[in-house]
Amino acid sequence: MKIGVIGLGTVGFGAVEILTQQKERLEKQIGEEVIVKYGCSLDEVTLPEEIIYTQDFHDVINDEEIDVVVELIGGTTIAKTIILEALKKGKHVVTANKALIAHDGQEIFETASQHNAKIYYEAAVGGGIPVVVPAKEDLIANEIEKIEGILNGTTNFILTLMETDNLDFDEALTIADGLGFVEADASLDLDGIDAAHKIQILAMNAFEMFFDFNKIQATGIRNVTKKDMDYAKKLGYRIKLIAQAKKLDKGYGIDVSPTLIGIKDIVANVNQAYNVVEITCNYLENVIFYGKGAGRYVTASAVVSDIIKTHKQDMWKHDYQYEECIYPITYSKYYVRCDHPLDIDYETYFSQDKDHIYITNKIELDELQKQLQNETYNLFKVRG
Amino acid sequence: MKIGVIGLGTVGFGAVEILTQQKERLEKQIGEEVIVKYGCSLDEVTLPEEIIYTQDFHDVINDEEIDVVVELIGGTTIAKTIILEALKKGKHVVTANKALIAHDGQEIFETASQHNAKIYYEAAVGGGIPVVVPAKEDLIANEIEKIEGILNGTTNFILTLMETDNLDFDEALTIADGLGFVEADASLDLDGIDAAHKIQILAMNAFEMFFDFNKIQATGIRNVTKKDMDYAKKLGYRIKLIAQAKKLDKGYGIDVSPTLIGIKDIVANVNQAYNVVEITCNYLENVIFYGKGAGRYVTASAVVSDIIKTHKQDMWKHDYQYEECIYPITYSKYYVRCDHPLDIDYETYFSQDKDHIYITNKIELDELQKQLQNETYNLFKVRG
Repeated sequence: MKIGVIGLGTVGFGAVEILTQQKERLEKQIGEEVIVKYGCSLDEVTLPEEIIYTQDFHDVINDEEIDVVVELIGGTTIAKTIILEALKKGKHVVTANKALIAHDGQEIFETASQHNAKIYYEAAVGGGIPVVVPAKEDLIANEIEKIEGILNGTTNFILTLMETDNLDFDEALTIADGLGFVEADASLDLDGIDAAHKIQILAMNAFEMFFDFNKIQATGIRNVTKKDMDYAKKLGYRIKLIAQAKKLDKGYGIDVSPTLIGIKDIVANVNQAYNVVEITCNYLENVIFYGKGAGRYVTASAVVSDIIKTHKQDMWKHDYQYEECIYPITYSKYYVRCDHPLDIDYETYFSQDKDHIYITNKIELDELQKQLQNETYNLFKVRG
Repeated sequence: MKIGVIGLGTVGFGAVEILTQQKERLEKQIGEEVIVKYGCSLDEVTLPEEIIYTQDFHDVINDEEIDVVVELIGGTTIAKTIILEALKKGKHVVTANKALIAHDGQEIFETASQHNAKIYYEAAVGGGIPVVVPAKEDLIANEIEKIEGILNGTTNFILTLMETDNLDFDEALTIADGLGFVEADASLDLDGIDAAHKIQILAMNAFEMFFDFNKIQATGIRNVTKKDMDYAKKLGYRIKLIAQAKKLDKGYGIDVSPTLIGIKDIVANVNQAYNVVEITCNYLENVIFYGKGAGRYVTASAVVSDIIKTHKQDMWKHDYQYEECIYPITYSKYYVRCDHPLDIDYETYFSQDKDHIYITNKIELDELQKQLQNETYNLFKVRG
């Protein structure tokens, strides 16, 4: 197996390090040589001397010896060109590029199919946590019914900080930023877009359908307040940014939104920058995968397992149908904090200061919002 | 792929049902026919008419058309004969038989290797939770350092009941028994032997070594009392039956013992009959797999994914070395309840009624026990 790594930033360089350090063990496991032939990056980096350094990705893609192209530059422009060109040459591709797979998965998967090449992207979801491949291969007996997860470490770190240090969103954001947890484009994380990329990828594979990413409704954590966290706690809940996908009677529900989760629930105990994915299916019932969602070696670990996996047969195909009907999941219990009592069915109610706080029974969101027309309110989903 | 299922009890019949119900989908995924040709059982059962019923396992093993033999009768006698004979004929074997793999894994794996046959046993550990294969294939980049888990549902159910309903062990056991959670041979569960089978299997694969099962020290939950649970709770801990395996400076530590775990720890929040496995490794840090540890379709789900996996190449080999040096893990923090104050380094101490309760600093067990020579005491490990 001869590998070209394109993009030598944090994860790319980490993958080269692991492949170098573990070379002997990996080769023994799969009975095949594991050679990194190229490292490609616009920024000059020092590589082990047996690896050819290039700034031109065509050197990698045009080399007939290369079996696996690893795309780790990110973004949806050049990365897309690289991946499509590599697949068209029949090379297997490994990537961590969640935005690209979420937006252009259909084109990429179809190109891979046409050219009998494999495309793996375990590192795109949940950092190093094995979930993309296990959800297909290890759960292959099952029909997947629902996926729920904390898929963004930055927002989970901020929510954890708000809770433990009793901070408001802006205060926690400043601290998280100071600790290097916030990316240059903070909106991807804070507005739930990154989590939406990831749930889109999991949903495609779970339901064997292609979806239009632009139809996925993502709500981030900017409207989570210290006050709501306190009320949630008083009611026995934590607030987490939950990405969710499930089969509806017609079509599929996929969304990202802050959600109250009972504190005894395993998912509510996923704190700091950890990620979790819970999959509900027909035979296995529910299964949870948990681990660190980011970090050089954490993510590179998933990239390397993908590289090694290209040497064996797939147990699954990416030949999905396109599905038009995707919706936010609006039939839910809700947490509502408002100024006046409401005329609704609820599970719990209390008032404190000038606030009226409800955990409602399950209700359609628009029905609930009719009640809130003239109110100042804050509202989150409640899991369960 | 033509399959013979030997043993048509709860799990075996469940596997036949799943293979029948999901036939079309499975065939589409792997591009190959998936046919159950035989069902073999001493007890007469009604099978779909296209499946040949037999009471003689030789019918299955001697049929040249059969690719995969599924052994689900359990035990370490006939099951072993069936597995070894099938492997010797070059047939792949899928089993859920933890006792057999724990005791005779080396012989079975070596036989499989010699005859170029595969042996899969995902269902042997954690019921349907994907962990055996993911620990090898998805974590292939990593060197595994430590494994900890709640691997026995019955004891976890009893411990949960003791805590939630404030019961002593005997009371909770009676209830669990009434609910069908206790097997005929209760000792396998209650004395930690079943959990030891499972940690042995995980440890073999993680460390790529064969171990002698008889060297594994297992302590069950019979000495966990309501009183100790209360004290643990007061200190911010829960008591769980933890199976653990880790590299020591010389050799390997493997044991099963009741252990206090901080209540904020994910593992402490695994209740009822659920199982959990936490794997610590060099790149991925820690990753957790959680789900139901038993149940017809839960376990059959893992059996079926194993069956389907026999159609592709392995990413790992079972050609491990035999390792002599395995020990219980005795250097730990301990919870001690005793009659008199002790002269030890501790993290926490309080006394209540006539009890003196400690969370010690890390200490070797025999050093601690010297202090306790003339005491009446109860003692558990503390995680961390």
